[in-house]
Amino acid sequence: MSKPESDKAPLAITMGCPVGVGPELILKIFAAGQENAVVIGDKGALSWCAAETGLPVPVVSWQPGDKLQPGTIPLYTPSATELSKDELQWGAPNEKTGRAMGRYIEEAVSLIQDGMAIALVTCPITKTALNAGGYHFPGHTEMLAQLCKTEHFAMMMAGTSLRVTLVTIHTSLSAVPAQITPESVGEMIDMTWQALRDDFGINTPRLAVAGLNPHAGEDAMFGTEEQESITPAIESARAKGKDVQGPFPPDTVFHKASQGQFDAVVCMYHDQGLIPFKLLHFSDGVNVTLGLPIVRTSVDHGTAYDIAGKGVANPASLEAACNLARQISYNRREKGVS
Amino acid sequence: MSKPESDKAPLAITMGCPVGVGPELILKIFAAGQENAVVIGDKGALSWCAAETGLPVPVVSWQPGDKLQPGTIPLYTPSATELSKDELQWGAPNEKTGRAMGRYIEEAVSLIQDGMAIALVTCPITKTALNAGGYHFPGHTEMLAQLCKTEHFAMMMAGTSLRVTLVTIHTSLSAVPAQITPESVGEMIDMTWQALRDDFGINTPRLAVAGLNPHAGEDAMFGTEEQESITPAIESARAKGKDVQGPFPPDTVFHKASQGQFDAVVCMYHDQGLIPFKLLHFSDGVNVTLGLPIVRTSVDHGTAYDIAGKGVANPASLEAACNLARQISYNRREKGVS
Repeated sequence: MSKPESDKAPLAITMGCPVGVGPELILKIFAAGQENAVVIGDKGALSWCAAETGLPVPVVSWQPGDKLQPGTIPLYTPSATELSKDELQWGAPNEKTGRAMGRYIEEAVSLIQDGMAIALVTCPITKTALNAGGYHFPGHTEMLAQLCKTEHFAMMMAGTSLRVTLVTIHTSLSAVPAQITPESVGEMIDMTWQALRDDFGINTPRLAVAGLNPHAGEDAMFGTEEQESITPAIESARAKGKDVQGPFPPDTVFHKASQGQFDAVVCMYHDQGLIPFKLLHFSDGVNVTLGLPIVRTSVDHGTAYDIAGKGVANPASLEAACNLARQISYNRREKGVS
Repeated sequence: MSKPESDKAPLAITMGCPVGVGPELILKIFAAGQENAVVIGDKGALSWCAAETGLPVPVVSWQPGDKLQPGTIPLYTPSATELSKDELQWGAPNEKTGRAMGRYIEEAVSLIQDGMAIALVTCPITKTALNAGGYHFPGHTEMLAQLCKTEHFAMMMAGTSLRVTLVTIHTSLSAVPAQITPESVGEMIDMTWQALRDDFGINTPRLAVAGLNPHAGEDAMFGTEEQESITPAIESARAKGKDVQGPFPPDTVFHKASQGQFDAVVCMYHDQGLIPFKLLHFSDGVNVTLGLPIVRTSVDHGTAYDIAGKGVANPASLEAACNLARQISYNRREKGVS
């Protein structure tokens, strides 16, 4: 097999859970003209979904190094993962679909590491299905980190109006304050800044950091985390010459950022970042993993088992994830970042 | 003095801090045609601001019961509160401006209680200025509650796309979880529901309640407040026949509400409600006090001392506050609510 030139290699799109909305989203983006992308997934899931939803795009088996045929879906199915019609019940993942789903991710990473694909775009999975398949990870990100031997990674939610990163993610609100330290905030500032420069091609990133408390604590009247952890982290980043401002009152910083005053907002907890992000980018947001050696973007929604196979799923997030993966790959090449 | 018919009585607009943006906002809404409203404030502040910003609207002294003259600003200045030019320095409140500001509020409430005005609309104040003037309250709301002898009151932020109420307000994030109880959530559900029915004229209000934790706790994986406090409060309200749904994942409920699925969202903490509200209503949001016997709305921004007197303040929030105060007064009359 011959390795394509790096700027011409295809995207690797994993199908995610074969009984979720992944197959339908893939059919829709190819029907809309998606090119230079290969799908790692199941033929039966695509064919069955195409028949049920009336989205007929020819599926062609693809092997690493094969040329792509315009107007088709190039499909790579890892060995021994083919699913039968009986195993493919919309919304009902099982051990076999879970194992196949995990293999898609492993194989896609290998393709990229081998130079046969340029970037990873993932359709949604669930923790339950992944675990049923024998992959004991909370989600995509942790699995990818292990496959890429990466210790420091983070999630960015990216849209055309707003980008946010999160110092804490799946943490109960009561456990958040103890996790806000100069180190945790400082690390997220650094990762966000570096991603803006290398992945988003912004030479002089302007970063806002949100406070934790109402009015950013208002001089420690409503909490001291700003003074004890957030401000020291900001000052440390500024001392290194980075344009990092804050801590800002959380209720106005997203307006400023969405108006173009900042390239991203570093947020202290899940909903602080995701409430404004999903309000602005409900359908077209993209989840980007920072810190990996490979480029990886993802849809920002779940498997949506309740609507799987019904023809009503919105492909805007997958479409945006493909576009952003290409853009990041291009920016990294331009910057000489591997 | 003769008492006007209730549906013809004017609004009472307090100037707020005379050295903040209040005078300019008032000049701007009257220049734009505001009618049937009287201002409780200082003549010098209005005249000086008009001269500096080129917003000349004639100011006419008004006494309770006087007829209003179209095209003028009817001004009521409480006795012994006139401020000299020396005392009026933009952005620099002092004891005299603070005392005058407190008196505007007291007099406006009296006018409404006497039937000479229909509703209160307030321009911004600061706690510092209020305290300097001898009024020891954290803000407008607590002062109004005492003047009206009200124990249970709450703040609603209202806009054309979204309305939110808050179970906790000026509380550090670490102190929020302990304040989320079936009682505190239940009381806010009840006050919000009643306001939607009586003040907003919605016969069958549809209320959403946000969770506290990411994904509303996801079956107690990330926190138990949903199960222990929020769900019991929702079930109790539903048992009384109210259409109350939740707890919803906080990162998607505001999208649903802004799309029209709910009439308001009951939020657990300040930024949970104000982040989405200010993103949708940065300039035209209105703060409504629930639970008072009088109708009271307010701008949703502060004194903005940094731009006071410069002619650049945006009057959209004051304009919206006047419109909403009239609407609530009308709805209460229609419902027979005093």
